[in-house]
Amino acid sequence: MSPESPIILTPGPVTVPDFVLQAIGQPVVHQRSKAFIEFFSELQAGLRYLFQTEGPVIVLPATGTMAVEMTMKSLFPTGSNIAVQANGKFGDRWLQFANYSGIKAVPIRLPWGENLDKDTITSVLEAFPDLDGIVLTHCETSTGIQIDLEEIVFAIRQVRPDMSIVVDAMSTVGVTPLYMDAWDVDAVICSSQKGLFNPSGVSFVALSMRVLFQMEIPNADDAYHLGHYWRFLSQGSFPFTPPTQLLYGVLEALEKIKEIGLPARWNLSHQMSQYFKTAITELGGRLYGVGNSDVLTAFSFGEVDHDKIRAELLAWGYELAGGQGFLKGKIMRASHFGWIGMEEITGLVSTMKEVLQDGLDRFQFDDEEEE
Amino acid sequence: MSPESPIILTPGPVTVPDFVLQAIGQPVVHQRSKAFIEFFSELQAGLRYLFQTEGPVIVLPATGTMAVEMTMKSLFPTGSNIAVQANGKFGDRWLQFANYSGIKAVPIRLPWGENLDKDTITSVLEAFPDLDGIVLTHCETSTGIQIDLEEIVFAIRQVRPDMSIVVDAMSTVGVTPLYMDAWDVDAVICSSQKGLFNPSGVSFVALSMRVLFQMEIPNADDAYHLGHYWRFLSQGSFPFTPPTQLLYGVLEALEKIKEIGLPARWNLSHQMSQYFKTAITELGGRLYGVGNSDVLTAFSFGEVDHDKIRAELLAWGYELAGGQGFLKGKIMRASHFGWIGMEEITGLVSTMKEVLQDGLDRFQFDDEEEE
Repeated sequence: MSPESPIILTPGPVTVPDFVLQAIGQPVVHQRSKAFIEFFSELQAGLRYLFQTEGPVIVLPATGTMAVEMTMKSLFPTGSNIAVQANGKFGDRWLQFANYSGIKAVPIRLPWGENLDKDTITSVLEAFPDLDGIVLTHCETSTGIQIDLEEIVFAIRQVRPDMSIVVDAMSTVGVTPLYMDAWDVDAVICSSQKGLFNPSGVSFVALSMRVLFQMEIPNADDAYHLGHYWRFLSQGSFPFTPPTQLLYGVLEALEKIKEIGLPARWNLSHQMSQYFKTAITELGGRLYGVGNSDVLTAFSFGEVDHDKIRAELLAWGYELAGGQGFLKGKIMRASHFGWIGMEEITGLVSTMKEVLQDGLDRFQFDDEEEE
Repeated sequence: MSPESPIILTPGPVTVPDFVLQAIGQPVVHQRSKAFIEFFSELQAGLRYLFQTEGPVIVLPATGTMAVEMTMKSLFPTGSNIAVQANGKFGDRWLQFANYSGIKAVPIRLPWGENLDKDTITSVLEAFPDLDGIVLTHCETSTGIQIDLEEIVFAIRQVRPDMSIVVDAMSTVGVTPLYMDAWDVDAVICSSQKGLFNPSGVSFVALSMRVLFQMEIPNADDAYHLGHYWRFLSQGSFPFTPPTQLLYGVLEALEKIKEIGLPARWNLSHQMSQYFKTAITELGGRLYGVGNSDVLTAFSFGEVDHDKIRAELLAWGYELAGGQGFLKGKIMRASHFGWIGMEEITGLVSTMKEVLQDGLDRFQFDDEEEE
């Protein structure tokens, strides 16, 4: 593996298999043609399996951030009261979006690296009985902290059976168990460049019938409101030119996932995660925070500049992510999704052994006084 | 040419050449890697040539509609006063967006099919001296009406040298002359699936330094505000995961356009347009409206159902667009951009001769009483 095309083990983008890239390279079909309408119906079926839902999945030519913002804007009109889980970079972002969008948001704030438990949720719901909804982050990829979504949604439903529950599941859909309908979640959001092992460019919002019936459909063409997409989707079409090429790649991935089976895909991530977490501990590293996610592993080797270790790993053909925000340089993150298997993870572990065999001295932080 | 993969002659999406599809199929590169930063710098250079500007071009993982809305929202904060050209489906859409976004918009309304002249613009500016900006549509693809942008911008600048001029140039960039800096336009917007002969999925907003300095940069991460993208672009990066695969295709097209030269590309569209307009007249059709655009030709054969003619052409491998809104069934539209040349246009004309040789009787509208 040359440094020119490393194995990408960041939490998105991920390594995309050739069969997806080839599907993306198919000739363009017009989005109003019969062929596209048939294709889109297959895509919907595949997405329903992926999200484990009977409801519709809105396809957005947008980034994951846009998709979460659009969902919040569409389900929580100005003046709504919501709670937002905020224990990492992404939760903080959704809280910030609520604040500048006129949504009244109660932060469920925890230190980065700490997890949210069901008792905290229950006490928030009791303290704020007027909440219209809640925004949860299934796996905070900034820290590797994953909530027990099933348990937390169950706890919410005990108190508030009708509340709108929105889940940023960007890195978990297709990677770790998530049963949208069975768990009774209202909106699940993910993007193409994570568990779907596709390039970036498309996002997906699966919606429950409960919120679809409640959601206000804007009269005007508001391109940043899900109601607008839903009005078209309910007739099998799109309000605007869809990114057809990228959708070809997504359908290819969905068919592959169906063939392999979701449980087998989930299990593979679990195996990679378990193997990697054990190996990191054996190498003298420690897992960051409670480190309970199969989606990715955030870890550290103590007081060294992890960006230097990452640079060396990249030269060996393995691209990992660094820390974000105040964690910059202090941790590394390896994802366990994308089109990879145990071979890539064992290869990464062997390479890490090589890179670390002479100790950590050459990875010290540069003297900051020189700057 | 089989009906399975027709030559697409709609005003987007368009026929995409194999060399673009192959570029899109390249391995994924991480957007924080050195290789991507170099790639992105080449992309910017290519875009500056395409837009004929020295300023930055913001790359958006969004549809063209989103890109225009974001530009309007970013340059015209709530309470701004603007004028909006409204003589077709797209102008009407921008007017509607202004209305529900709290932008005070004066419609410059003309019947569909009529063109906007410089005297109308001058009188609007005199009647409304407090306007902060104006939104123009270079070519209304719903009707095939193209404004004389150079002349109209010149007329605006005589009265209001500092006003923000936003141009929806979705179908004209790369297709017909547009010199952003020389003509002194502030924002020019286009998408990948038009003159760049790429699949849909990415949009571009070229901004003048004048509006960049004026534009408010939101403190928060507002994914629907250009200021957010500009803050990152000014450091050569992206706020979110960019659609890297699609950008590979765009760079490939930009390099091809540079190699051929913009004037040669513009001239090809002009030749195709002239040839086609003459042929339509010879076939007994007439051009819709003033029909002055090289971008596309909107035409009709009188009181017949043009959707039936289109269905037959599609069976022969040529996909044309129909009429929109109240023009549905009443006209057809053929675009003169995408990766096509005279061969495709002469082929289309020969096929039309075949299809129309037995007269128009079998293309009558169905008796509506039966419905």
